[in-house]
Amino acid sequence: MFLTRTEYDRGVNTFSPEGRLFQVEYAIEAIKLGSTAIGVKTKEGVVLAVEKRITSPLLEPSSVEKIMEIDDHIGCAMSGLIADARTLVEHARVETQNHRFSYGEPMTVESTTQALCDLALRFGEGEEESMSRPFGVSLLIAGHDENGPSLYYTDPSGTFWQCNAKAIGSGSEGADSSLQEQFNKDLSLQEAETIAVSILKQVMEEKVTPNNVDIAKVAPAYHLYTPQEVEAVIARL
Amino acid sequence: MFLTRTEYDRGVNTFSPEGRLFQVEYAIEAIKLGSTAIGVKTKEGVVLAVEKRITSPLLEPSSVEKIMEIDDHIGCAMSGLIADARTLVEHARVETQNHRFSYGEPMTVESTTQALCDLALRFGEGEEESMSRPFGVSLLIAGHDENGPSLYYTDPSGTFWQCNAKAIGSGSEGADSSLQEQFNKDLSLQEAETIAVSILKQVMEEKVTPNNVDIAKVAPAYHLYTPQEVEAVIARL
Amino acid sequence: MFLTRTEYDRGVNTFSPEGRLFQVEYAIEAIKLGSTAIGVKTKEGVVLAVEKRITSPLLEPSSVEKIMEIDDHIGCAMSGLIADARTLVEHARVETQNHRFSYGEPMTVESTTQALCDLALRFGEGEEESMSRPFGVSLLIAGHDENGPSLYYTDPSGTFWQCNAKAIGSGSEGADSSLQEQFNKDLSLQEAETIAVSILKQVMEEKVTPNNVDIAKVAPAYHLYTPQEVEAVIARL
Amino acid sequence: MFLTRTEYDRGVNTFSPEGRLFQVEYAIEAIKLGSTAIGVKTKEGVVLAVEKRITSPLLEPSSVEKIMEIDDHIGCAMSGLIADARTLVEHARVETQNHRFSYGEPMTVESTTQALCDLALRFGEGEEESMSRPFGVSLLIAGHDENGPSLYYTDPSGTFWQCNAKAIGSGSEGADSSLQEQFNKDLSLQEAETIAVSILKQVMEEKVTPNNVDIAKVAPAYHLYTPQEVEAVIARL
Amino acid sequence: MFLTRTEYDRGVNTFSPEGRLFQVEYAIEAIKLGSTAIGVKTKEGVVLAVEKRITSPLLEPSSVEKIMEIDDHIGCAMSGLIADARTLVEHARVETQNHRFSYGEPMTVESTTQALCDLALRFGEGEEESMSRPFGVSLLIAGHDENGPSLYYTDPSGTFWQCNAKAIGSGSEGADSSLQEQFNKDLSLQEAETIAVSILKQVMEEKVTPNNVDIAKVAPAYHLYTPQEVEAVIARL
Amino acid sequence: MFLTRTEYDRGVNTFSPEGRLFQVEYAIEAIKLGSTAIGVKTKEGVVLAVEKRITSPLLEPSSVEKIMEIDDHIGCAMSGLIADARTLVEHARVETQNHRFSYGEPMTVESTTQALCDLALRFGEGEEESMSRPFGVSLLIAGHDENGPSLYYTDPSGTFWQCNAKAIGSGSEGADSSLQEQFNKDLSLQEAETIAVSILKQVMEEKVTPNNVDIAKVAPAYHLYTPQEVEAVIARL
Amino acid sequence: MFLTRTEYDRGVNTFSPEGRLFQVEYAIEAIKLGSTAIGVKTKEGVVLAVEKRITSPLLEPSSVEKIMEIDDHIGCAMSGLIADARTLVEHARVETQNHRFSYGEPMTVESTTQALCDLALRFGEGEEESMSRPFGVSLLIAGHDENGPSLYYTDPSGTFWQCNAKAIGSGSEGADSSLQEQFNKDLSLQEAETIAVSILKQVMEEKVTPNNVDIAKVAPAYHLYTPQEVEAVIARL
Repeated sequence: MFLTRTEYDRGVNTFSPEGRLFQVEYAIEAIKLGSTAIGVKTKEGVVLAVEKRITSPLLEPSSVEKIMEIDDHIGCAMSGLIADARTLVEHARVETQNHRFSYGEPMTVESTTQALCDLALRFGEGEEESMSRPFGVSLLIAGHDENGPSLYYTDPSGTFWQCNAKAIGSGSEGADSSLQEQFNKDLSLQEAETIAVSILKQVMEEKVTPNNVDIAKVAPAYHLYTPQEVEAVIARL
Repeated sequence: MFLTRTEYDRGVNTFSPEGRLFQVEYAIEAIKLGSTAIGVKTKEGVVLAVEKRITSPLLEPSSVEKIMEIDDHIGCAMSGLIADARTLVEHARVETQNHRFSYGEPMTVESTTQALCDLALRFGEGEEESMSRPFGVSLLIAGHDENGPSLYYTDPSGTFWQCNAKAIGSGSEGADSSLQEQFNKDLSLQEAETIAVSILKQVMEEKVTPNNVDIAKVAPAYHLYTPQEVEAVIARL
Repeated sequence: MFLTRTEYDRGVNTFSPEGRLFQVEYAIEAIKLGSTAIGVKTKEGVVLAVEKRITSPLLEPSSVEKIMEIDDHIGCAMSGLIADARTLVEHARVETQNHRFSYGEPMTVESTTQALCDLALRFGEGEEESMSRPFGVSLLIAGHDENGPSLYYTDPSGTFWQCNAKAIGSGSEGADSSLQEQFNKDLSLQEAETIAVSILKQVMEEKVTPNNVDIAKVAPAYHLYTPQEVEAVIARL
Repeated sequence: MFLTRTEYDRGVNTFSPEGRLFQVEYAIEAIKLGSTAIGVKTKEGVVLAVEKRITSPLLEPSSVEKIMEIDDHIGCAMSGLIADARTLVEHARVETQNHRFSYGEPMTVESTTQALCDLALRFGEGEEESMSRPFGVSLLIAGHDENGPSLYYTDPSGTFWQCNAKAIGSGSEGADSSLQEQFNKDLSLQEAETIAVSILKQVMEEKVTPNNVDIAKVAPAYHLYTPQEVEAVIARL
Repeated sequence: MFLTRTEYDRGVNTFSPEGRLFQVEYAIEAIKLGSTAIGVKTKEGVVLAVEKRITSPLLEPSSVEKIMEIDDHIGCAMSGLIADARTLVEHARVETQNHRFSYGEPMTVESTTQALCDLALRFGEGEEESMSRPFGVSLLIAGHDENGPSLYYTDPSGTFWQCNAKAIGSGSEGADSSLQEQFNKDLSLQEAETIAVSILKQVMEEKVTPNNVDIAKVAPAYHLYTPQEVEAVIARL
Repeated sequence: MFLTRTEYDRGVNTFSPEGRLFQVEYAIEAIKLGSTAIGVKTKEGVVLAVEKRITSPLLEPSSVEKIMEIDDHIGCAMSGLIADARTLVEHARVETQNHRFSYGEPMTVESTTQALCDLALRFGEGEEESMSRPFGVSLLIAGHDENGPSLYYTDPSGTFWQCNAKAIGSGSEGADSSLQEQFNKDLSLQEAETIAVSILKQVMEEKVTPNNVDIAKVAPAYHLYTPQEVEAVIARL
Repeated sequence: MFLTRTEYDRGVNTFSPEGRLFQVEYAIEAIKLGSTAIGVKTKEGVVLAVEKRITSPLLEPSSVEKIMEIDDHIGCAMSGLIADARTLVEHARVETQNHRFSYGEPMTVESTTQALCDLALRFGEGEEESMSRPFGVSLLIAGHDENGPSLYYTDPSGTFWQCNAKAIGSGSEGADSSLQEQFNKDLSLQEAETIAVSILKQVMEEKVTPNNVDIAKVAPAYHLYTPQEVEAVIARL
């Protein structure tokens, strides 16, 4: 069974006899090894919270960036290969800037997500910005545009879904169950913060501190919490 | 037998000794795993109805798009890999817009379908818009032009057929039988809606609701039903 | 024996030790699976007749096109992969139009056939219009030019022959024998129609109807028969 | 022994450990399956004669072209893959026309032969007019230029030799022996015709008729014999 | 287990079934064979110290460069393949010079590090400056910009982290432990020098001399220590 | 042992573990199968003599060219694949003509040899004039320039040596021994002719005649001997 | 063990699981088969001495060039594949000439060495001047610039080191030991000549003569010794 698989995945972007794309499935495995990230949408805006794995006390915690700004009104949390995520985010930043320049208005959150996924879909094509393999990263894209707040989830196949709440990474299974229990459409932004961090706490092996958790909101502008703001959320738990 | 196959399909677009193209056949397998979609043509216009698999209650149902507009007078339902379908639809949108711009009139439904299939046929060729593998998606293309309403069915080999009614996806076998029993050329559009949704109901494992079913018509313009309109059709069953 | 073959055909366009081109032979297998098509040349013009396999009563018979117009004075019947045939026909249409534009006169039937075969021969070359595999289709090209009526037969190797009568597809063996018995150079066009359809009738498993048979003539202009005209030919049998 | 070969010939144009080029040798096998062609040079001009295999009585004998004109003063007979030969001949026609246009005089027979062989040698190089495999055809090139009549023989390796008489194709071994016995430098053109056709007759399984034999001469202009002229030669045997 | 790996790493930049990129992991092995390098950040600036393996007394010690200047305000220490490091450093030098030219100000240390990592990430892509394999080198990048002193660590995957102190190369494991014990944020630059060289001394098999150790600081400008300055640090141990 | 070789030579231009380039070694095997050629340098000029294998009495001996002129002052004898040699000679002719045009003086013999070897070295590189395999030919290049007469020997690896006398091809081993015995620096050109042809006679299986031997000299201009001149040399033996 | 290697080295420039680049290691094997070359640096300049293997008495000794001039102030000795060395030297000559033209001053010895190594590092990249395999040659580069005399040693990986004295090729191990014993920084140029040639004498199997040894110096200009000058050095031993 296993050997049969290996016959197919060397052509990076071809179907197996059962109609599967193995390189995409293997990339999804890479994400299952990643740190956990959580997004929660409220009427006031979207909250993103991520686990940061600080492998050495000599590492600068702020340099382990798992939440990044794409534009004033869009941010994203990631799980998987960070170098791949940086490439996608950099691509999205250029796209949103170009859009502002060409049309004099911000790019919608869905168009930004679509642009990221177009790049992700075309791996193995030998084109300019594409990679020779799938991007080994999942993103939670939080944004705010004329349609209000929105939260998107992308995977390495270039597919995306709009969600009310979503967890990705190694703890995503448990975290998703907790989100389904605790989420409702009338959550305040502060309640969303508390839920996101309390669920992160459950799936992390270490004590939660401002050093190993990052939080951001898009409400309606992107804001990455300071250590003091993170401390305050943790204190509420 | 199985091992012999694997000798051939690595060259993505080459014949086996029996004259078969395995990558195309494997892509067709991908579609058999997809959600069911149904199209029915009447004299008044064409109805499309699709099953939406909402894997989590936190997913935004409206973001699971399995019916998309191509132009004012053309829409399509899909089954298979959604990211691939988005690429095809985006290509068709550009083609139809270019046609309007160049000729000052809408592109016919058949030309639009042919343009989609040209792109699908040329996988593995290393050309600009083509993929290194077949597009893993089937489409039901509903349209209305100077020849009246029409419904086309495309598969991953780049072949297309014009149909009176057609089902694709995991439930297509049973749905096609039901369509053959219930279809006649004098159906009203409303009767077509009822038939399409009632057949979807048979092949879906869950209860039919406005959350897990989408309906659209082209009669003569494309219109995606609101949840209320979907609810009304379900109520008629 | 069989395994030895597989060593050679992966290079799509290379010789085996016995001097054979396996990909071409495999493509010819694809055609043996195709529906039957028949062409008969008379002094008055050429008749083409094809079997159409209508796999579902919901399929629009007229959308299963197995006879296509190339130019006013040239048409062709096909057997094999329809999407491949469409590419070849589209290429021939552009060539004949360009010829009319450049030289102010119609392209000869032989030049048109040669242009089709040039494209077919060059598979696996990575050139612009060529495919990465042989075109899996045989054509019967009927035309009328300054040399009078003519009928050409092409196969996936890019070779062509001029014929008085010829059958291709799954029933070609029996049909060719019948044609040899019944053909003579003094047939009228109407006699040719009758012979072509009566031979089709022998090799088809279903009853012959205007739904599952198409007829066209080039005499001297291309004309695809209406269902009524087809009905009339069937009635004469 | 046989398996060892298969290790080397997949790189289409690489040496085996014994210093052999297998794809070229395999292409030569393809020619051994071809119909027989014979060329004889006399002081008056060169005669070419070929066997035509008419596999069906419905085939137009004149459309099975195994002798083709390259320029007024050059013609060639071929054995092997006809589609490949057509490509080479078409290339030679363009070269000779360009030469006339650029230099205002006909291209010499040797230069024309060299131009054909340059194209044949470069298979597998990915260049514009070259093929991904050797051309599976041998040519007998008959011409007449300022050096008088000449006859060249080319093989798939891109090598050529000047000959007084030569046979190629499935019957070449026996035919070459007969030519060595019967050829002398003082043959008249008519004697050469008789020798060529009588030797063809020996190696063909069928009775020789104007339908299955073609004859041409370059003396000093290219001329393909009419059926009547062929009949006259046969009558002399 | 081992054989399974070899199935995957030949496609230089593709995932294994477990979501791993083997070529990157193998490149990391190359670094484990390299000489040890240490970086320590203080408020006054950053210190870099490296072991130099002088394999022959006839080698010019100063030509074994394991610390290089990138710009006035940035230097780097390396471990792994020196030829690869030279390519990365040369690329960074061009980037920083271009930045000064375009913007009239020095490039930040993070942007410089990102530029290096962009190049490293894209191995196997066939692009202009990228390699067909990962760069087999890790860098410690020391710099000083408007945000004060900073120390970055990069690995062959194109990922980077900001650190207070870090060791790379064959002795990195022991050296990192020592750094964690001895580092605190209030170290003076001189104390950092002493710590770095004393830890190098522990992991090196030979006696520490100005011949086999190089030291540099960025405080705020890059300065490579003269043999006398290195001697002075060693004397303090 | 043999199987291990086959693992390496498929990459046409890569080293084996022992540091060998197998495709070059295999090409050298091709030359060991070739006809023998001999070059002898004297103070008066250089003599080239080759064996011609006339496989059929119908072949035109003068069309088997194993000695060719490159420029007025340079000629070459060859052993191995004649089609490859023609490509190299054609390349050298263009180079020497371009040199004359650009600099108004003949190209030196060494520069001409270097230009040939540059082309030979770069096989497998995908560049414009290079081949996908080594050129299967060795050359003896005889020339005369401002440094007087010179004789170069090239092999398929792109290496060249200057010689006083040299034999290549199937009889080269015995011929080289005889050359070492008989060569001295004070030979006259006529003595060199005699030595070259007498040694050829020893290694050839057939009687030496003007039909199966060619002789040329560069003294100081290139001259290919007429049959009468060859006859005269043979008569002196 | 051995078979495992073969799994990796077919991708010419990829890492093995242990972080090794096998093609580079195999190229280094090619050099171990080469003739010995020695370089010695003194304050007065640098001496290069090489063994020449004259395999036949008919070979012109002066045409076996193992020491070549790069520019007035730079020369190099080589061991390994001579055709590869010629390509590198030709590249260096162009670089140094371009530098003189652009900057009006000679290129430094280190920059010249770096330029050679940049080309060597990028094998297998498909770029213009690079090879599809490593260059199978090591160089000793002797030069003299504003920093005085210098001696560099390069290997096939594209790495270089500055040395006081160095031996390469088949006898390098023994020669390097002797150099370490006999070298000191105060050697005169004449003493360096004597040491280099006396060590060559130890590692060569034949008697040392002006025919099988070449000597050159850069002091400060490049000069290749005449046979008389070589004879004089030998006489001093």
